[in-house]
Amino acid sequence: MDSLLKIPPSTPIIRPSIQTPGPYQETCNDKYVVKYNFADLDPEEATEELKTLLTDLEEAGLQTEVRAGYDETLLIFVKAPRELLGNTVYKSRVKDWLYGVVHDHPGGTKNTVVDAHYESEDILSVYHLVHWSKEHGGAGIHPGIGQWKNVEAIFPLHNQRANQKLLSHLSKRFFLTAEDLDKIRDIWGSKIAFYFAFLQTYLVFLIFPAVTGVVAWLALPKYSLVYAITTCVWCTVFVEYWKLREVDLSIRWRVRNVAQVKTNRPQFTWERVVTDCAGRKHYFFPKWKQVVRQLLQFPFFGIATAALGLLIVSVFAIEVLISESYEGPYKFYLEYLPTVLLAVALPYITSSLEGVASALTQYENHRTEDNHERALAQKVFVLNIVTNYLPILLTAFVYVPFGDDVVPWLEVLIGKVLGKVLGQQQFAKRPFQADGDRLRNEVIALVVTGQISGFFEENVVPFVRHRFSGWWREMRRLRHSRDGRGADLMSLFDDDPDEAAFLTRVRDQSMLRDYDVQEDIAEIVLQSGYLALFSPVWPLIPLGFLVNNWIELRSDFLKISIEHKRPHPVRTDGIGPWVYSLNMLSWLGSISTAAIVHMFSTSGWGPARWASLPITIFVGEHVFLLFRTLLCFLLNQLGSPQIREERSRLYATRLQRLEELEANKRNGLGLTAAERERRRSMRATGGDKLFTRQVEEGVSAAVGVDLIRRFKEAAESKKKK
Amino acid sequence: MDSLLKIPPSTPIIRPSIQTPGPYQETCNDKYVVKYNFADLDPEEATEELKTLLTDLEEAGLQTEVRAGYDETLLIFVKAPRELLGNTVYKSRVKDWLYGVVHDHPGGTKNTVVDAHYESEDILSVYHLVHWSKEHGGAGIHPGIGQWKNVEAIFPLHNQRANQKLLSHLSKRFFLTAEDLDKIRDIWGSKIAFYFAFLQTYLVFLIFPAVTGVVAWLALPKYSLVYAITTCVWCTVFVEYWKLREVDLSIRWRVRNVAQVKTNRPQFTWERVVTDCAGRKHYFFPKWKQVVRQLLQFPFFGIATAALGLLIVSVFAIEVLISESYEGPYKFYLEYLPTVLLAVALPYITSSLEGVASALTQYENHRTEDNHERALAQKVFVLNIVTNYLPILLTAFVYVPFGDDVVPWLEVLIGKVLGKVLGQQQFAKRPFQADGDRLRNEVIALVVTGQISGFFEENVVPFVRHRFSGWWREMRRLRHSRDGRGADLMSLFDDDPDEAAFLTRVRDQSMLRDYDVQEDIAEIVLQSGYLALFSPVWPLIPLGFLVNNWIELRSDFLKISIEHKRPHPVRTDGIGPWVYSLNMLSWLGSISTAAIVHMFSTSGWGPARWASLPITIFVGEHVFLLFRTLLCFLLNQLGSPQIREERSRLYATRLQRLEELEANKRNGLGLTAAERERRRSMRATGGDKLFTRQVEEGVSAAVGVDLIRRFKEAAESKKKK
Repeated sequence: MDSLLKIPPSTPIIRPSIQTPGPYQETCNDKYVVKYNFADLDPEEATEELKTLLTDLEEAGLQTEVRAGYDETLLIFVKAPRELLGNTVYKSRVKDWLYGVVHDHPGGTKNTVVDAHYESEDILSVYHLVHWSKEHGGAGIHPGIGQWKNVEAIFPLHNQRANQKLLSHLSKRFFLTAEDLDKIRDIWGSKIAFYFAFLQTYLVFLIFPAVTGVVAWLALPKYSLVYAITTCVWCTVFVEYWKLREVDLSIRWRVRNVAQVKTNRPQFTWERVVTDCAGRKHYFFPKWKQVVRQLLQFPFFGIATAALGLLIVSVFAIEVLISESYEGPYKFYLEYLPTVLLAVALPYITSSLEGVASALTQYENHRTEDNHERALAQKVFVLNIVTNYLPILLTAFVYVPFGDDVVPWLEVLIGKVLGKVLGQQQFAKRPFQADGDRLRNEVIALVVTGQISGFFEENVVPFVRHRFSGWWREMRRLRHSRDGRGADLMSLFDDDPDEAAFLTRVRDQSMLRDYDVQEDIAEIVLQSGYLALFSPVWPLIPLGFLVNNWIELRSDFLKISIEHKRPHPVRTDGIGPWVYSLNMLSWLGSISTAAIVHMFSTSGWGPARWASLPITIFVGEHVFLLFRTLLCFLLNQLGSPQIREERSRLYATRLQRLEELEANKRNGLGLTAAERERRRSMRATGGDKLFTRQVEEGVSAAVGVDLIRRFKEAAESKKKK
Repeated sequence: MDSLLKIPPSTPIIRPSIQTPGPYQETCNDKYVVKYNFADLDPEEATEELKTLLTDLEEAGLQTEVRAGYDETLLIFVKAPRELLGNTVYKSRVKDWLYGVVHDHPGGTKNTVVDAHYESEDILSVYHLVHWSKEHGGAGIHPGIGQWKNVEAIFPLHNQRANQKLLSHLSKRFFLTAEDLDKIRDIWGSKIAFYFAFLQTYLVFLIFPAVTGVVAWLALPKYSLVYAITTCVWCTVFVEYWKLREVDLSIRWRVRNVAQVKTNRPQFTWERVVTDCAGRKHYFFPKWKQVVRQLLQFPFFGIATAALGLLIVSVFAIEVLISESYEGPYKFYLEYLPTVLLAVALPYITSSLEGVASALTQYENHRTEDNHERALAQKVFVLNIVTNYLPILLTAFVYVPFGDDVVPWLEVLIGKVLGKVLGQQQFAKRPFQADGDRLRNEVIALVVTGQISGFFEENVVPFVRHRFSGWWREMRRLRHSRDGRGADLMSLFDDDPDEAAFLTRVRDQSMLRDYDVQEDIAEIVLQSGYLALFSPVWPLIPLGFLVNNWIELRSDFLKISIEHKRPHPVRTDGIGPWVYSLNMLSWLGSISTAAIVHMFSTSGWGPARWASLPITIFVGEHVFLLFRTLLCFLLNQLGSPQIREERSRLYATRLQRLEELEANKRNGLGLTAAERERRRSMRATGGDKLFTRQVEEGVSAAVGVDLIRRFKEAAESKKKK
């Protein structure tokens, strides 16, 4: 095997460190780790691939160190040398200027080396060096795709001290300030910082409905109109305020319109390459094919909705059976058991459906990461709406109002089947009574269990899983070495003592999952959707959310720090497509809230109430739209501090350039006698006959004054007459 | 009087022309005319003011010539000398670049002199030199405001040859191409060219509903659902396409986002001036005051609507009286006389209400011309909706459905009053019958008379008025000179024979009205509103509009050429706020059309139909919104040729700059042996212990390969076991 390599004979394979001894203290800003998995390859293929990989990295100017990872993987440590890193950061700033993300050129020349303003700026540049295609100056390492399908992951290293410091800082604060958000941006980049900013803004806004909710619960009737309107208004204000806040922060973080700076997704496949007159290469994939592929999502949504609807209806049927006909022990708990089970199952159903959505989006073959993400987020949003809100909507508008007609019939049917099996003793026939309390309990069951099971699925399960698999790996290794047949394997991890602790940390991180911020944003958007759509059902919901989110914000920070690989510090200028979802939810909310209050605020289900429902909805919706338009107008008039500041900055830049340009601003002011004479003679001999008459100074005025005098005299003489 | 002036004794007041004799052929690109009216001043004041005026113009570098105008006015001819004009055009281009209107710097230095690409570019610069405030380098002449309240107007000269040439070209064409629109832009600037582009796009789009309308009229039932849907879809496509077209043209004419380059309105009053840290002067007027003032428009709309509603109801009452009770001669004509009178009166009512709206907008004190125009356009739009659509809406949803209940009661009332006056012979009591035909006739009467009276008000009346006042002025002058007491007045117009024809033309132009393109756009938007809102009522309407607009396009061109002063060639990047109006109309259309078809498509007015109306409206509206969203998405995907071209251009610019920057793109590629050695030694002695291990070339690979081998061996041995 060694014959494949030309190692200078004098060089030891691992050169002893010439630094001072002691445990290795890593810097995180200039490093990336490439995790290479060769389990599926034979040694020759693996060797070839590894050598290509290392060459590609080195040709991009990066330094490499190879160490063993767990489970037939290698960890390739990649470092961008100071000069390269500083220059890449500089180029990235120039690019921002070229694309209009920032308005001021950073100065300097092509060889300028700058210091990053914060850690994630450096890391982003290293990410670009590793990840961007060769034509963009990177090494072109796209994990899991094509040539690099055996590269399992590339990731930066967690800066654990910074993480811990920030976490303890955050847990002492009730409200996060802009400076706190800056710190999150410094560590993980603006995309993730925007999630925290969004969560924080939502948290602050939640105080209002939490308070009014308690008041409503104590003082107002059930399904109160006043509370419903208050919450709808609040919801709209929140969405519109967030839009402004997003712009404000994106200016603060200098990422406004950063989506302009986009490269092709590595997964994007094209049919042919067209080079246009400007020398621009177009990777051409027919638009119509993409549109046709996008149409596939509609049957998918249809099937998903139908299947879910059926599932929900079955749950209802079982529930009805228990609540109406079962008279045995634990009736109260059994009654809501199916709903609780549904709530526990929903996150899993959602995530498997999201898997399909993700595959569909992949198939749609979007050119940029941005478009891909937007298409996926839209699908996830629709799925979330269906899985989470469909049960409630079915309860509110089908089960409760029509239960009186359907349930007795259903009971008879089920009774016939089950009665034979269980015998008749426990199934008493009673008149069915559907009412507003049924809807309330449904919402409580779904929301409360949903939040709790979400918390478990998100925080506890992965943690336990990761810990268990670590324990299992350690067990296996120990058993191998006890057996004596694992000597080889043990020697792989026979690390330099200085590095051992560090390498263990990195190996551990390499086994963690990637972090997807979209999931967390989706969760919050969905939660706000409950408020927008069903707030009057149970006014204590916002209070629960407030408490939940205060914990969520901190636990999410912790989660990213210890349960996930450090995310690539990608930049965005907001939470992207989710703003549309928020918009849509507050719109739907105006319809749903109006309908719920209309239907449930008093008892009794006469046909007159059904008849006037569309009018209520129409009024509710249009009052909402009008209010939103006015609010938008008002908030835009108001602006935000950052927006105003940027405007001033832009103005100053322009003013300076205009001043340079307009030294001779008022062209005829304060001329010398000679210059006046020159102009006069030019005018007198000029081509324009009309303007050769009153050339001398003051002549125009004299002629004018004379004309005025004669006019006035004529008027005078006329008056006398 | 002459003692006030220092005329060099050797200079004749009007210097004889040194050019070749013959009638004066003017150039239009470098001239402006300032019309100064001193009728209200005594000679001393007038003299002072005139001298200040001439000094201000000359200090801005402009040349002046004074001639007599009609009716105690002076015409001050202003010319920008070649150097000044070329430099102002150049600066304006640089400014466009600074404000991001265009993406390429024009090159050159502050003294560069350029040729304009087209006439209106020159004229715009002259306009700026005359009109802009002194701090922006102009002469600060704001006609009719403050210091210059006696300056009646400033205007450029019509280029009559160019106008005639283009008019005869246009009248030969059925469709205007982009090049034709370019020519309009060349003469009058982009703001007016956008009006023609809009009219042209609308005209082309009208062909579709005109054809389907004829088909519907021949083959489909009255109030056809199919035709209604077709027209709604068409309407939406039109609005969305126009939005795209606007962007396309604004890129073509290099005016995209030109609204960025804005200066304060001269009418804007401020409470104090604040200078911020960037040295920017803020003319501060409290936002809240403006908002409060803007609130005034709501009572205004309320009162206007109520008054108009009352007027319309009275017209209906009279009509009912005639149609239901009158049996005398000319019944058919008398029946629709009130509606026709209403239609004739509406333009006048509208314009007087617009006067109030304009005063309100003035009072709102907007900072920029742009905001002012937007606020005014919004008001005008609401007024137009009220005055034009209210009669039809009242007919459709009050008069026709409720007529059966109200009219007999009304008849009795009127019969009692009038019966006594006229005697009973001509008022027979018959059962009232309201139906869809009533609505149809109402719409026809309003639309047809509205179009015809609009044409008269717009084209014929001003023409006749202008001709008559010219004739009257001439009469008076002749009488004066006959009387012998007008010798002085005659001598004022004793023009140099070479100039006489030219001066007569200019004097004539100085008496014409200003052109306001907003009025014309409003007319077309309003017309398209008829289609959006009431298309199913009478499917032949679009055919009428098609014919009308084909004429309108040419007659408007003629109208601007001969009935108005040449407009300032101001630049905009579209038809501005009217796009919102179009949007709103197509939205309202989806509601109104659905309601009309629902109510009138079959006869009979049961309560069941009223009950299902909200559902129809709800469905109609939301289908529309969904369709519009999809269409937007699709059209944005499609883009337009100019948009794509601009993208390529931008790309090329950026590519070039990036290439300069990234000479060392792949940092580690193809290094010399010396450079490699340097890097290696730097790395070996660097501060990062981890990266001092595998410094020598190929060592990383060797270590990796070795690790792979050992891993595989371990796996092998395990398998054997």
